[in-house]
Amino acid sequence: MRATLLYGAGDVRVEEVPDPVIRQPSDALVRVLRSCICGSDLWPYEAHNGRPVRIGHEFLGVVEEVGADVAGLRRGDVVVAPFMYADNTCEFCAEGLHTSCRGGGMWGAGDVDGGQGEAVRVPQAQGTLVRLPVGEDAALLPSLLTLADVFPTGHHAAVTAGVGPRTTVVVVGDGAVGLSAVLAARRLGAERIVLLGRHKDRTDLGVEFGATDVVAERGAEAVARVKELTGGRGAHAVLECVGLGEAMDTALRVTRAGGTISRVGAPQYQQVSFGGPAFMKNLTLTGGVAPVRAYIEDLLPDVLEGRVNPGRVFDLTLPLAEAPAGYAAMASRTALKVLLHP
Amino acid sequence: MRATLLYGAGDVRVEEVPDPVIRQPSDALVRVLRSCICGSDLWPYEAHNGRPVRIGHEFLGVVEEVGADVAGLRRGDVVVAPFMYADNTCEFCAEGLHTSCRGGGMWGAGDVDGGQGEAVRVPQAQGTLVRLPVGEDAALLPSLLTLADVFPTGHHAAVTAGVGPRTTVVVVGDGAVGLSAVLAARRLGAERIVLLGRHKDRTDLGVEFGATDVVAERGAEAVARVKELTGGRGAHAVLECVGLGEAMDTALRVTRAGGTISRVGAPQYQQVSFGGPAFMKNLTLTGGVAPVRAYIEDLLPDVLEGRVNPGRVFDLTLPLAEAPAGYAAMASRTALKVLLHP
Repeated sequence: MRATLLYGAGDVRVEEVPDPVIRQPSDALVRVLRSCICGSDLWPYEAHNGRPVRIGHEFLGVVEEVGADVAGLRRGDVVVAPFMYADNTCEFCAEGLHTSCRGGGMWGAGDVDGGQGEAVRVPQAQGTLVRLPVGEDAALLPSLLTLADVFPTGHHAAVTAGVGPRTTVVVVGDGAVGLSAVLAARRLGAERIVLLGRHKDRTDLGVEFGATDVVAERGAEAVARVKELTGGRGAHAVLECVGLGEAMDTALRVTRAGGTISRVGAPQYQQVSFGGPAFMKNLTLTGGVAPVRAYIEDLLPDVLEGRVNPGRVFDLTLPLAEAPAGYAAMASRTALKVLLHP
Repeated sequence: MRATLLYGAGDVRVEEVPDPVIRQPSDALVRVLRSCICGSDLWPYEAHNGRPVRIGHEFLGVVEEVGADVAGLRRGDVVVAPFMYADNTCEFCAEGLHTSCRGGGMWGAGDVDGGQGEAVRVPQAQGTLVRLPVGEDAALLPSLLTLADVFPTGHHAAVTAGVGPRTTVVVVGDGAVGLSAVLAARRLGAERIVLLGRHKDRTDLGVEFGATDVVAERGAEAVARVKELTGGRGAHAVLECVGLGEAMDTALRVTRAGGTISRVGAPQYQQVSFGGPAFMKNLTLTGGVAPVRAYIEDLLPDVLEGRVNPGRVFDLTLPLAEAPAGYAAMASRTALKVLLHP
């Protein structure tokens, strides 16, 4: 079959790789219908150095075969996979923290397939895959694919920041995760959502997703503008959806005393300025890698019934063979998020 | 009257200062019955450089006079003051965040009296002072004085870390705040409380307060020992009660995936290592300067009825005139916490 491989900085190739086969009785084989490129794929895309590695961690497909221990799934089921696999039975999964599953792991790591390919061997298939009540040609496939990562990641930011009705929310970043965080915050009832982003086409979608205010300024000017919008206080809930130190600094500075910063952008920083000033303001810093599997059942009905349309973050659709062009488009910010089909 | 002044590093003096008088109709004058020295007083004690400043922020006393706007307090009332004054009416106070009160502030700052003296002018007296149903000579005065800071500070750590029954708690630090955090965690129902501290006389008191395990090791060895005690996972709730970067690093390393570090030690660091590893574990960092005023009514009955005895943290009692010796004793770790009387 064909799959993406990351050879080096800026060098993604689609090549023949071995067809996946069932290795463990807990495995399943999934033929991929849709996969996509994540903002977090751009970090290794821009920096990879070493032997070629499989890449991609968001996919939706059809079950082709299941191992002997896999119950509840059968050939022909349309399924979505969270961006990490998990057994859904360990103590961490029981707490909703599937990203810390002792039996879980990352797509593309070791001998595990990446998500950008024609098929995937899914470890811990019973715990990992979620059946979708749709056909292979459903118009909803893009929105359903966002359940693999981007929509529940935005949801994780909103949930861990305690967003609800009457919360004033600031979302830092107008990438696909930031826009998903806007959508998630709106879905949870937030009435005031301030989106920080400089790309008008993206912030326009953010407004359609529920942002009530857009701040296009950066740094100190952005902080001043948010303060102006929040009576000088800042926001109770700040969702950091970028992962750069500069974004985190902005997030800290627009948080109200007693407020919470939740970060879901993969950190490209090691340290956070969280000394005396944050202490005196009783700030809380939370979030992290989203335990997507814990959220899918909660989010699925709203997607199926069209109350939310998170698939609108895809603004470029390419065949798998053109994945390299998709990476280039996202890296140059000419595409927001790229959908891939076989 | 006499009060403490910090002249420079290691140089505290008790000197004559002007008698306080009512300046604002919201003021009250309090004659001090008991005050004390805080671990956080040691930071300026060890580093102060500049003009002499008043010091001390924990006191309990008798109302001598109230301003025209002060309701609910009268001459002769025994009262305790939180370590910051606050109006108890603003939007922050209404949220229980009295440390961010727009009308509040710190003892000893500007023209506000410090707490270590014979009397104090209390700004925002109606919002700040809490009446205590005891006489001037009550045996409970030491435990009631802890309501000014150290006991509710430990409580703040436990509350913001989400401590409850079935929580496994790690307390980093065997100072008076750490021991108070043990007591608070036990009071909230925690069944397993691991105390990290090297001073046996202190950790012995910690065991009496409710610690189930004591770890005397430091750094990597302490981390290994906590992991051993928690099935390799670490603890859900870690209360950082020191304020040094090393203590925070230990706290981060003994926190279970999905767990919370709450810090109440005044930070002597600017940065926290909260990048990729903390992100992958979905750690939460919370806490901060304790809004003591929000907790006093909740804690008071247990102190009055003797169910907790937080005043046991005082192991040295001195007259105010000997406050310099008290500072020296705490700085050299020969005293845990020093109680001062007039």
